[in-house]
Amino acid sequence: MKWWGWGEQEISWSHDDKPSLGPFVRERIGIDLDQPPAPLIELDQLKVPDPALDDVLLKALTAVVGDDNVDQTPLDRVVHTYGKSLRDLVRIRRGDLGRLPDVVVYPGTEHEVAGVVAAAIEHDAVLIPFGGGTNISGSLEAPRTETRPVISLDVGRMAQVLDIDEGSNLARVEAGVLGPDLERQLNARGWTIGHFPDSFNHSTLGGWIATRSSGMQSDKYGDIADITRGLRVVTPNGTLVVRPVPSTSTGPSVREMVLGSEGRLGVITEATVHVHRLPAERTIIAYLFPSWSAGLAAMHDIAASDAHVSVTRVSDADETAFSFATTKRSSRLSALKTSAFKAFLKKRKGFDLERMCLSFVGYEGSAEHVKANRKLVGAIVSTHGGVSAGEGPGALYDQKKFDTPYIRDFLLDRGTLADVSETSTGWSQLEPLYDAVIAAARAQFDELGVRGWIMCHLSHSYHSGACLYFTFALPPSAALDPLVQYDRVKAAVQQAFLDNGGTLSHHHAVGTEHARWLADDISPVGVQMIDVLFEGVDPGHHLNPGKITGR
Amino acid sequence: MKWWGWGEQEISWSHDDKPSLGPFVRERIGIDLDQPPAPLIELDQLKVPDPALDDVLLKALTAVVGDDNVDQTPLDRVVHTYGKSLRDLVRIRRGDLGRLPDVVVYPGTEHEVAGVVAAAIEHDAVLIPFGGGTNISGSLEAPRTETRPVISLDVGRMAQVLDIDEGSNLARVEAGVLGPDLERQLNARGWTIGHFPDSFNHSTLGGWIATRSSGMQSDKYGDIADITRGLRVVTPNGTLVVRPVPSTSTGPSVREMVLGSEGRLGVITEATVHVHRLPAERTIIAYLFPSWSAGLAAMHDIAASDAHVSVTRVSDADETAFSFATTKRSSRLSALKTSAFKAFLKKRKGFDLERMCLSFVGYEGSAEHVKANRKLVGAIVSTHGGVSAGEGPGALYDQKKFDTPYIRDFLLDRGTLADVSETSTGWSQLEPLYDAVIAAARAQFDELGVRGWIMCHLSHSYHSGACLYFTFALPPSAALDPLVQYDRVKAAVQQAFLDNGGTLSHHHAVGTEHARWLADDISPVGVQMIDVLFEGVDPGHHLNPGKITGR
Repeated sequence: MKWWGWGEQEISWSHDDKPSLGPFVRERIGIDLDQPPAPLIELDQLKVPDPALDDVLLKALTAVVGDDNVDQTPLDRVVHTYGKSLRDLVRIRRGDLGRLPDVVVYPGTEHEVAGVVAAAIEHDAVLIPFGGGTNISGSLEAPRTETRPVISLDVGRMAQVLDIDEGSNLARVEAGVLGPDLERQLNARGWTIGHFPDSFNHSTLGGWIATRSSGMQSDKYGDIADITRGLRVVTPNGTLVVRPVPSTSTGPSVREMVLGSEGRLGVITEATVHVHRLPAERTIIAYLFPSWSAGLAAMHDIAASDAHVSVTRVSDADETAFSFATTKRSSRLSALKTSAFKAFLKKRKGFDLERMCLSFVGYEGSAEHVKANRKLVGAIVSTHGGVSAGEGPGALYDQKKFDTPYIRDFLLDRGTLADVSETSTGWSQLEPLYDAVIAAARAQFDELGVRGWIMCHLSHSYHSGACLYFTFALPPSAALDPLVQYDRVKAAVQQAFLDNGGTLSHHHAVGTEHARWLADDISPVGVQMIDVLFEGVDPGHHLNPGKITGR
Repeated sequence: MKWWGWGEQEISWSHDDKPSLGPFVRERIGIDLDQPPAPLIELDQLKVPDPALDDVLLKALTAVVGDDNVDQTPLDRVVHTYGKSLRDLVRIRRGDLGRLPDVVVYPGTEHEVAGVVAAAIEHDAVLIPFGGGTNISGSLEAPRTETRPVISLDVGRMAQVLDIDEGSNLARVEAGVLGPDLERQLNARGWTIGHFPDSFNHSTLGGWIATRSSGMQSDKYGDIADITRGLRVVTPNGTLVVRPVPSTSTGPSVREMVLGSEGRLGVITEATVHVHRLPAERTIIAYLFPSWSAGLAAMHDIAASDAHVSVTRVSDADETAFSFATTKRSSRLSALKTSAFKAFLKKRKGFDLERMCLSFVGYEGSAEHVKANRKLVGAIVSTHGGVSAGEGPGALYDQKKFDTPYIRDFLLDRGTLADVSETSTGWSQLEPLYDAVIAAARAQFDELGVRGWIMCHLSHSYHSGACLYFTFALPPSAALDPLVQYDRVKAAVQQAFLDNGGTLSHHHAVGTEHARWLADDISPVGVQMIDVLFEGVDPGHHLNPGKITGR
């Protein structure tokens, strides 16, 4: 993975084959894509301080995991310093490394994890579990002022599907497995976990659990909190073992205490998760709606109907315009841009093309199931003035769905800050919240004197509400530190979530980025309940201190 | 509600109109129903000690809730002493009142609840929240050795549906509402909560949440943990407010800490819950399977299919025989007992009628949805050699579904101890667990020298497993205290759950009855995590001490 950006070194996103994008971003955001990207800092230009780790602890760690699995090289320490938030990328490109870990250890077994945890506590060190390193909420960095030794525990060597209970649709899996490797192991035996977050290619099962992840097909498969049944977690007091039972009434849910715990209770080593037989059919259909309100109302009606779908997604008009602007010359989305189709939408359907919203709905199951549900959804779409745009755009979406984070690096190379913030709220609250968020972001853009951009899609539907996923971008003004400008916009968006019945994050966790809104979200008593749990399990604050509750 | 048994004074269960029952229980369990029932103890024969409550606390409580809402009469204190477990009923019929509450208070608002909680802590008293009083796990009684004043806080006056957010399918409801009252208020506006536990007629929303309840239609509507989105809970440190968002990644779930907390974190005053439009169609179809294995396999296949149903239930051969034995002369189940139908099953379907298993599957939704799903399930049933027995028996089941607890009183009147224990485990583990539980119970019956009875049904299906619900009965021998005999059988059943991959309870909570198996279920570290939470929120152990973790 790139130490300075998203994904693999050899992959990057380009506008060369997307003829509409240059004019679009020049007009809407004021970015000139013809300017050459700013040069990146070289690794050897970074000032990496020597590790602050005494020999006794280093020997103790080496005794546990072996010489080959202890790394103190600058590259490895830099890679394990941050996640991949916009703030992380800006800082690392500036050479601001914060409080780097002093050592990275790679245990290969739960027994070794227990040894590392014990050594950290015995030697009064801080331990930060590290999965794929994709977190965007600041969950992976040590506090800047931390004076104790900092150990990054990378679970990447623990990546096996240990067992599939085919009779119970459950797989027992080591927590360090990356998304594609997990699917490869499961698919080989005819199974899938059905969990596909944007970060899928670079994030781990343990990371999904530690941050309460959600995936693109969670409408069918559930969020990771639903998928995860059994757990093994190395805590300071021994190994927590949660049985993979389908449902239980054993007091406050310990399983749900581990979900979202971001390393503060221990290191997740293994999980037993729902798996599903690969579906006979799988398709994603694009629909176009005359307005955002119509699109949201249709998603609401689908959720309230007898239909069962795998994906529900609708973009607002700005995100729809952006999607069309990023299409390649040869794209299957281009069919929607022909003048004949536009004329059909305008004249026959009465669309205002500036307000049009693109939607994707996914279907999985038997041919009969897919057919019946397409019919149910089709009727709902029609009721709201929408039209089907067929399978082509859906297939394109499916193929490109993990590419979005690369666009952020592309923009950052050109000096533009882009990031995401997402929330969930009740169906009736979606539009008021949306309006408030857009207004709050634009007010900040105006105050900063920048040409900012904000767009949104509904990404997951539930019985009582949905997730709204916002993307914003701003070419910062020269007057202020870019991160200060980013903070003001991000804070305005987050505050609008909280002021309008939303949660601080639907699936990106709390970390340090969102900690200041936690009391507004779950009330001060809720924060205190989480704190007494952390304090009781880890009174020495050895495990990823400062995350979630800020303490 | 009866102080000595289940339900309303004027309702009881009778065998007079069930001609097959007398011979059945005489032959199988050795009970003679022609013997007159044992006379009940009269209320005024009970030795009710004076309340151990000083005037200062009594005045403080009266100042909060008013004179009319403080009760120290013997009847009210007796009614609030226990729940309705077999142990509770035996003890109360013996006049063994344990540690009665000294006072029962009935706050009418959350503000008053907060006043009562504050008074309890200030005056070093114990506070036990009380909903409908139907708990069967010992969650409602004060420790026998408790020397502090004991206050029972009855939430029964807080019973209003406060608001329905029709756009979001959410209702905000006071926690003290009883099942039928809740449905009446929701139905009047076209909605249902879809939560129907056996105890429905006498249990409350707050009680369902505090014990992680599950209902008969949870296959469609979810368990109470799924249904409950928002919460208000008065804790010693202020009021916890959980926003009713559909999904969130705000660290360890505080919502899931309250679910199953049995009063140990505070008093649940309000919840925001999923509600659904009353379905256009609703039907329950009976099926007969040639064996228990075939019935379980069919339920598994339904769960793994594209079908969406509201109820999945299959009884083992003994419970099937019991169901047939309890039918009335005029019952619609009688159709299944005609010699023509029996001959059809034996000759055409190859059934061994002694091994036959009765199943119910429920369907809800549009006419088209019900039809399509009946077809899907019908095909699965056929695959496993089952046959449909139509709507008649299902309608009967639906009508009588809340009557079962009355049978326990009927048997207890005749000296027979009957109770239930339920668990959940993975699909592949259901039969081994079932076999082990039956063997363990029978071994105890043999050791005690009694003619015991144990039967079982699968009551809820999930993606990865199901709930098995066992009912056992024994006419105790004269050699030992009946409760000692009951304990041995109950413990053998519970231990078999834990030894075979099951949980200590799927939906009846931990209380005091199941506390000794908690560490076997969620591991010692899990128990410690719950304990540090309780200790941190309530260091003085004022809130329902001793429940769940035994401390």
